[in-house]
Amino acid sequence: MKEEKDRIHDLAIVGCGPAGLSAAINARARNLDFVLLGSEFCSPKLYKAQKVNNYLGYYDISGDELRNKFLDHIKASGLKVENSKVDGIYTGDGYYSLMAGFESFNTYSIILATGINYTDLVKGEEELVGRGISYCATCDAGLFKGKKVAAISYTRESIEEVEFLVDMVKEVVFIPSFQIDKTIDIPATQIIKGKPVEFKKDGEQINIKLNNQQLYVDGVFIFREVIPPDKLVPGIELTGPHIEVNKDMETNLEGIFAAGDCTGTPYQLGRAVGQGQIAALNAASYLSKKKSEKVKEEEKIKV
Amino acid sequence: MKEEKDRIHDLAIVGCGPAGLSAAINARARNLDFVLLGSEFCSPKLYKAQKVNNYLGYYDISGDELRNKFLDHIKASGLKVENSKVDGIYTGDGYYSLMAGFESFNTYSIILATGINYTDLVKGEEELVGRGISYCATCDAGLFKGKKVAAISYTRESIEEVEFLVDMVKEVVFIPSFQIDKTIDIPATQIIKGKPVEFKKDGEQINIKLNNQQLYVDGVFIFREVIPPDKLVPGIELTGPHIEVNKDMETNLEGIFAAGDCTGTPYQLGRAVGQGQIAALNAASYLSKKKSEKVKEEEKIKV
Repeated sequence: MKEEKDRIHDLAIVGCGPAGLSAAINARARNLDFVLLGSEFCSPKLYKAQKVNNYLGYYDISGDELRNKFLDHIKASGLKVENSKVDGIYTGDGYYSLMAGFESFNTYSIILATGINYTDLVKGEEELVGRGISYCATCDAGLFKGKKVAAISYTRESIEEVEFLVDMVKEVVFIPSFQIDKTIDIPATQIIKGKPVEFKKDGEQINIKLNNQQLYVDGVFIFREVIPPDKLVPGIELTGPHIEVNKDMETNLEGIFAAGDCTGTPYQLGRAVGQGQIAALNAASYLSKKKSEKVKEEEKIKV
Repeated sequence: MKEEKDRIHDLAIVGCGPAGLSAAINARARNLDFVLLGSEFCSPKLYKAQKVNNYLGYYDISGDELRNKFLDHIKASGLKVENSKVDGIYTGDGYYSLMAGFESFNTYSIILATGINYTDLVKGEEELVGRGISYCATCDAGLFKGKKVAAISYTRESIEEVEFLVDMVKEVVFIPSFQIDKTIDIPATQIIKGKPVEFKKDGEQINIKLNNQQLYVDGVFIFREVIPPDKLVPGIELTGPHIEVNKDMETNLEGIFAAGDCTGTPYQLGRAVGQGQIAALNAASYLSKKKSEKVKEEEKIKV
């Protein structure tokens, strides 16, 4: 951890679906120093596909088998997926810092391959982000010391973040969208079953309307599979829910590339693999250009 | 042949490299009526690759093995590659006509996946196309009846076209860039070994400078692996040697899409596969939109 803190990588790849994995094998081919950050389970969407027939080279294969072929490729390339869900990306002094739970990574370039949420945002959510609603316990739990918050979880992997919240604030109301395993012991003050339908500001508090009841809290933490890109990276240009990219997979932010479903439709495997490759090769070009500029700059200073 | 003449397909895919093959399996998935037109040997470039490591799902595989996996996929999908090298595409009445040697195909939409020439054009070539230089014997041999032409071949597959020229014109000087097999009997008037370095107009004739001699002819036929896209499709927009496409792989011409190396760098397998998929899915959307417009139009006429 200490070592990681002081290190600046060439590249961070955020997401381990087909776009992220394709970016990784291509970044490897270009000998970049990079981290591949993903969730515990790469590409749940691919895993669930019963049969895949339209990825050239494999036919009549289950999504799970194909996913395993992809992960075998990663392993055989000497790579590994760091189980780190990035929840915030910030600009440092000439580099980017990625916050991932309790860890952080520094890097000169980034490929966003985060996929896309297939569920809609809740009514009122968009307006209240940063005004009581947060997607990142590590970043914002400190703001709610001594207060009551709701933790709305769309993913089992967020349980660790809920536990962190419990340590930091006075009361946590846990609202999971999934069945809770009886063996999991969540130390939340209260567990509510219900589907959030609306958030409203009410004085200093937030009023959460569920399909079956309502409650008032001081803050709301929402844990989804995918954080909306503009919440993850402030200032990134979107078209609708999609990250705007050019043909080189560059976003509007220098050194930040994007690939796969997060860049638009059609949401397809081959497209994601192709874009991951383009993003990695262009990130490599970007980095080598930056390095040669830096050398020139240093030579100027010497003269 | 007669049947084919009167038929209008949904789609023609021109080229059977990775982009064309990926377009084909995706067009199949969308149940389009299409032809897949390629050369006898799909993707010589892939075939020659010693090892491929950066196409997600396969590693440490030879280009030839991977090419066979791709062709197996095509066969397993019930598809076949028509051995037809398209040498001209023309606009008909609401559809396109593709000339391929002695055959022709009609279609409402096209995906160009022709790859790119890795050899440069000869000096003077560009300016003289249509003014004495042609890429298509079937199209233009008739213009040189009773005259002397040169047939410059960069591909063995063009020998058939040279034979056709011999039947049509008075004299054929054959200038192949490859070793001629002694068992092949070319009935050309003359066979010259030499590398073309420049073409110049000289009155009604063309002066061909080779690296070792020069000659005068009335016309020049050049047979390459890949016909430059703007020579293949008059009016198509290029940037340098590449077909200009948007994110949906649309060109500037309605119903014509492009994918793979012909659209730009990096010249890579995964990119080609992804773009082939995008082109096919967008061609499917284009066709279904056209069909529903046509239905509306017909309903209007009825009213």
